Amino acid sequence: MADVDAHGALSADELRDAWPILSVDERFEGFRLLTRAEAEDYFFTLSTRDQADIIGSLPPAERRTWMRILPPDDAADVVQELPKEREALLGVLDEATRKEVQALLAYAEDEAGGLMSPRYARLRPNVTVDEAISYLRKQARERLETVYYAYVIDADQKLVGVVSVSDLFAASPQKTVQDVMSTDVITVRPEADQEQVGQLFAQHGLLAIPVVDADGRMKGIVTVDDIVDVVEEEATEDIQKLGGMEALDKPYFQNSYLQMIKKRAGWLCILFVSEMLTSNALTFFQTELERAIVLSIFIPLIISSGGNSGSQATTLIIRAMALGEIKLRDWFRVMRRELITGLALGVILGIIGFVRVSLWPNAAHLYTEHFLLLALTIGTSLVFVVLWGTFMGSMLPFALRRVGLDPANSSAPFVATLVDVSGLIIYFMAASSILHGTLL
Amino acid sequence: MADVDAHGALSADELRDAWPILSVDERFEGFRLLTRAEAEDYFFTLSTRDQADIIGSLPPAERRTWMRILPPDDAADVVQELPKEREALLGVLDEATRKEVQALLAYAEDEAGGLMSPRYARLRPNVTVDEAISYLRKQARERLETVYYAYVIDADQKLVGVVSVSDLFAASPQKTVQDVMSTDVITVRPEADQEQVGQLFAQHGLLAIPVVDADGRMKGIVTVDDIVDVVEEEATEDIQKLGGMEALDKPYFQNSYLQMIKKRAGWLCILFVSEMLTSNALTFFQTELERAIVLSIFIPLIISSGGNSGSQATTLIIRAMALGEIKLRDWFRVMRRELITGLALGVILGIIGFVRVSLWPNAAHLYTEHFLLLALTIGTSLVFVVLWGTFMGSMLPFALRRVGLDPANSSAPFVATLVDVSGLIIYFMAASSILHGTLL
Repeated sequence: MADVDAHGALSADELRDAWPILSVDERFEGFRLLTRAEAEDYFFTLSTRDQADIIGSLPPAERRTWMRILPPDDAADVVQELPKEREALLGVLDEATRKEVQALLAYAEDEAGGLMSPRYARLRPNVTVDEAISYLRKQARERLETVYYAYVIDADQKLVGVVSVSDLFAASPQKTVQDVMSTDVITVRPEADQEQVGQLFAQHGLLAIPVVDADGRMKGIVTVDDIVDVVEEEATEDIQKLGGMEALDKPYFQNSYLQMIKKRAGWLCILFVSEMLTSNALTFFQTELERAIVLSIFIPLIISSGGNSGSQATTLIIRAMALGEIKLRDWFRVMRRELITGLALGVILGIIGFVRVSLWPNAAHLYTEHFLLLALTIGTSLVFVVLWGTFMGSMLPFALRRVGLDPANSSAPFVATLVDVSGLIIYFMAASSILHGTLL
Repeated sequence: MADVDAHGALSADELRDAWPILSVDERFEGFRLLTRAEAEDYFFTLSTRDQADIIGSLPPAERRTWMRILPPDDAADVVQELPKEREALLGVLDEATRKEVQALLAYAEDEAGGLMSPRYARLRPNVTVDEAISYLRKQARERLETVYYAYVIDADQKLVGVVSVSDLFAASPQKTVQDVMSTDVITVRPEADQEQVGQLFAQHGLLAIPVVDADGRMKGIVTVDDIVDVVEEEATEDIQKLGGMEALDKPYFQNSYLQMIKKRAGWLCILFVSEMLTSNALTFFQTELERAIVLSIFIPLIISSGGNSGSQATTLIIRAMALGEIKLRDWFRVMRRELITGLALGVILGIIGFVRVSLWPNAAHLYTEHFLLLALTIGTSLVFVVLWGTFMGSMLPFALRRVGLDPANSSAPFVATLVDVSGLIIYFMAASSILHGTLL
C-alpha cells in the first residue's frame, strides 16, 4: 500500500504507480498533495471515472477551476458520471462552454455525438494557403481539440471539405484552400455507435472524423485519442461477456465485493439453472445408466467436447461480428463453413476417442467385453456432439443479433451449457442404437 | 458474390463492400480494374496482409510503383509478410528508403521498433518559432509520417524535447523552440511490446510517441493510427485464445478450411485429452456410482458450475492484465478477493442446488428416501467446486505469466477442463462423507 499518510505528498509518478491500489479517499488525498502544475498534468491523464471521483470529492468552491480546464467533451462526460450534481457542475462553467456541454449531453455517451468536441478549426474555402495558416495560428490560441485538420465550412454551416495542416504546409502559398482541400470527407452522424466510429478510425488511419447531421451541417469532431480508449473499452466489455458475466464498467480493483458478486452471480445462476436440464435428461436415461453404469464414465468427456467446440465457434463469430468482418446476411456462408469445420473437428476427436477406449490397457476388464462397441459409441457420439456444438456456437450469435440483442451475450459458458443437454441426448441415442442387445 | 467478371470494373466503394467475400484472385482482379487514383486511395486503407497479397500478385515490373508509395514502416511490414520475396521487394526501393526499411526489419513486427517510422519532423532547439514553422513547411514536402509533432534533437542526435505545431502556432513568433518545447517527453524503447505502446497512447492521448534507444538517441516515431489497429488486433488475439483456440491472424473468411481446422483442432485435442482424466476419476469412483446411480445424475451440473466460475475468473484476470490494471505482484490481493468472491458465489449456487433437489416434486421417488442428504451433498459440493473453480481460474493466469507464457492461453475452456476433474473429486468426497451409511 502507498503510504500516503505516513510520508505526506507523493510525486505524480509515485501516485500514478499506486493509483490502482488506492481507495477513492486515498486517491483524493494524494491528488490534493500534488503541486498545482503536477496536478493539472495528472488530471488530464485520468479516466473520466477518476476525474469525476476527484471533482465529486472537492468542495464546491474548488470545483470551478477543475471543471473549467476540461475541454467540453470531457466536461460532458464528467457531468454524465455525476448525474446528481448535474446542475451544480454546469453552474460553474462559463456561459459559452455551458451551452456546448449541454448540447453534448443530449447524446448518449457511447454515440459519436457524445464523444465529439465542438471546438474544431474552421476555414472558408476561398482564402489562400498563407492566410489559412495565419488564421489557424490565431485559432490555435483558443483551446481547440486539434488544429491539424481544418474543416472548410460554407455560408450555410455545411461541411464542404477538409484540409490538414500538413497539406497546407506542403502547398504553394498562393493557392486557395479549395484548391488544396479534400472534398471526399469521411463523416459520421451524431447518433453513430462508438464501435462503428472506432472501425472508421482503424480503417482509414485518421486523426479526427467530423460529425455531420442529416443536412450536412458540421456539429463537431471526434478525435483519435478518445477512440483508442473506446476500442479498448468495447473489447473489454465483449471479453467479459464472453467469459460468462456482465461487463464490469470499472477496473478490476475498483469494484466492491458486492458489485463484483452481483455482476458474476447473475449469469452463473442462469447457467446453473439451464444446466439443471442435464439432470432431467439423465433422470430420463436412468434405466440405461443402471444397465450400463460404464456409460456414466464418459459423460463429462462427451459433453465437454461439445462445449469446447461451441465456445470456439461462438467466440470466433462474435469477435468477427464486432470487427465488422461478418454481417447478419453472411449467416448462410458461416453455417456452411462451420458445418464442414465442425464435421472435420468431430471426426478428429471421434478417432481419438475410439482409440482411447479400444486400446486402453485392461479395456475388457474396465469397460466390459463389449468395449469395442462402447468405443464405437464414444467415437460416433463425439462426431455428432462436436458438429452440433460448432453449429450451435456459430449460429447463436446470429440469432441474438437478429432479435436485437448483443451477440456477445452468447458467451462461451452459455453455449457450453446449451450444448451439454443436447450432448447427453446424442450420447444416449448413439448408445441405444449401437449397444442394443449387448450392454443395453 | 460480387460479379467482378460479369460487369467489369467495380467502383472503390463497391470493391470495399465486396472485399471480405472475395477470393485473393477476385480481389486482385477488382483492384486492377480501379482507376489509378482510386486504386492509390484504396491501397492505403488496406491491411498489411491485403497489401502484401496484391503486391505478391503483381508482375515484378509493376511492383516498384506500389512499394514506393508506401511509407517505410508499411513497406517493412509488407516485406515481412512476403519473406520469400524479401530481396526482390527491397530491390525496387530507392537507396535511401531501402536503408530505412532494412533498419526496421531488424525489429519484430510487434515491437515499437517494428511499428515506428524513421520519417519524423526535426527541429534544433535554438531556432525561433517563426523559423520553426517555415522549416516545418519545407519538411512537409518530404513524405513525413506527421508534421504535427516536431522532435527537438541536439548535436548528438539525442532527443531533448518535443513541440507540437499547435504549441508553435499558439506561441509568440519571436520565442525560440526551446522556450516552447516540452522536455518531459514520453518515449518508448525500440524493443517495447506493442501492447505496452498501445497502453501509453490510451493513457496519454498522444498522436505520436518517439522511439529512443538506451543512449537517448531518437530512432523514429510510432503514430496513433498504427496503434488503433494494434489495439484491435491484440484484443482479437486474446479473445480467440480465451475461446480455446489459436489466434487466427486473418479475418474469418480469409482462412482456408485447412487453416481454420488446424487452429482449432490443436486446442480441442489438448482439452479432450485432459478431459479424459474425468473418465479415469469416474472409473475410480465406479463402486460408489454402482451403489448410488443417482449420483451420476448431477455430475454435469456440479462440474459445469466449477467450469463456469473458473471461466469468469480467468477471463476477468487476463483482460485486467492485458490492460495493465493487474500486475504480477498483485497476485496475493487478487487471490484474497477471488477467494471471498468465489465463496459467496459458491454459497449462492449451493443454496439453489440444495433447494432444487430437496423441493423437487417427487424427490423421494426420483432420488431415493435419502433425498435430503443427497441435496446436502449437492449443496456442499457446489460451494467447494465454485470456490475452487474461481481460485484456479484467477491464479492460473499468474502462474502462466510467471513462467513467461501468455496468460491468455489459460482460456476459459482450459480452466473449465482442469476444474472438471477436481470437481468430480470434490463431489465424490462430499458424497462419501455425507452419504456414508445411507446411500453409500
